[in-house]
Amino acid sequence: MTPSAPTPAYRRLSVEERRSQLLNAALTLFAHRTPEDVSLDDVAEAAGVSRPLVYRYFPGGKQQLYEAALRSAAEELQHCFDEPREGPLLPRLSRALDRYLTFVDEHDTGFSALLQGGSVVETSRTTAIVDGVRRAAAEHILSHLEVTDPGLRLRMTVRMWITAVEAASLIWLDEDKEPPVEELRDWLVEQFTAVLAVTAARDPQTAALAEKLAADG
Amino acid sequence: MTPSAPTPAYRRLSVEERRSQLLNAALTLFAHRTPEDVSLDDVAEAAGVSRPLVYRYFPGGKQQLYEAALRSAAEELQHCFDEPREGPLLPRLSRALDRYLTFVDEHDTGFSALLQGGSVVETSRTTAIVDGVRRAAAEHILSHLEVTDPGLRLRMTVRMWITAVEAASLIWLDEDKEPPVEELRDWLVEQFTAVLAVTAARDPQTAALAEKLAADG
Repeated sequence: MTPSAPTPAYRRLSVEERRSQLLNAALTLFAHRTPEDVSLDDVAEAAGVSRPLVYRYFPGGKQQLYEAALRSAAEELQHCFDEPREGPLLPRLSRALDRYLTFVDEHDTGFSALLQGGSVVETSRTTAIVDGVRRAAAEHILSHLEVTDPGLRLRMTVRMWITAVEAASLIWLDEDKEPPVEELRDWLVEQFTAVLAVTAARDPQTAALAEKLAADG
Repeated sequence: MTPSAPTPAYRRLSVEERRSQLLNAALTLFAHRTPEDVSLDDVAEAAGVSRPLVYRYFPGGKQQLYEAALRSAAEELQHCFDEPREGPLLPRLSRALDRYLTFVDEHDTGFSALLQGGSVVETSRTTAIVDGVRRAAAEHILSHLEVTDPGLRLRMTVRMWITAVEAASLIWLDEDKEPPVEELRDWLVEQFTAVLAVTAARDPQTAALAEKLAADG
């Protein structure tokens, strides 16, 4: 009950809060610098804590912290795909793309680093994190399209489009975020419809889907 | 002039020939195993030479050999894009894709490793090799299209398509080379036309090009 010297603010955080604070500090740093240019001291400083405290939470050091930050970014990215299963399909895709592009915009450099894998850590593990996001994106799209047993041609079409969206995001960042994000979003949705139409000419399952999309508007 | 014990066959190769023989042996191995699973002993054995000889040519060991093999594969890949500048444009694209898909077919595992960067070496360097091939592909396409000053939307369209082709190649390998290669090739050409048409609606330069392509057939 006797007032004592104020406990440093960081002592009051729970383990989960502290962990999340460190991850956020790391993400912000990784978002603006390559992983090679971020040190544990930088993370400690950004979070206003000591380096030993960072080590207590991430005994594996920078590698572990980087992976955890990627995983946390990947989770956040996957939330972009959460979209209620109601209403016309293309506007749902458009809204998901809106959230995705906002994420890209906010995390710019870190997003590039995440996708390009220019990383200090074992590549196959970071690749697995990114591949998990890609897979989740494809699954979301196919489930919104209500295709339970997608054939090879439809799956390839969706995955090729997802890769094209990634490429577009990276180029967009390189090009100082041009064209404007609304144009980019609409353009990507139009490309989705166009590549689906191409596949429809070769694949009855995709043809049925393209018809549904056209009737859906 | 006096006959002596026959010189081992490998002694007769020139430095360039020997180097190229070692690279070929390495490429063949990397084509069927991940870099992690290829040792310098394997390369020496495949080339029928001693391990010290491999080290004499690649003193940096596996890392240097792997990078040199990637570079050599990248060069070979770039030759796929060599196409005479005559005749209708889409058949040119189709022939280049044919050669590219033959390369993918022949190097399968090594091609995946090259693109996915699941590598033992510094990622940024192997990424640069792969990015060089991507850039070369985009430049070839734009030069065949005779666009000297491509705008952002056209450049993005071409680069997105190239990424989609890469994704298609990797999925194709994963899916036991289905659909048949001729179908995949035609499908990719059709996608090129389709995404160009989408961009044409937003970009006068691409619109002019799409018209040229349509008149070209």
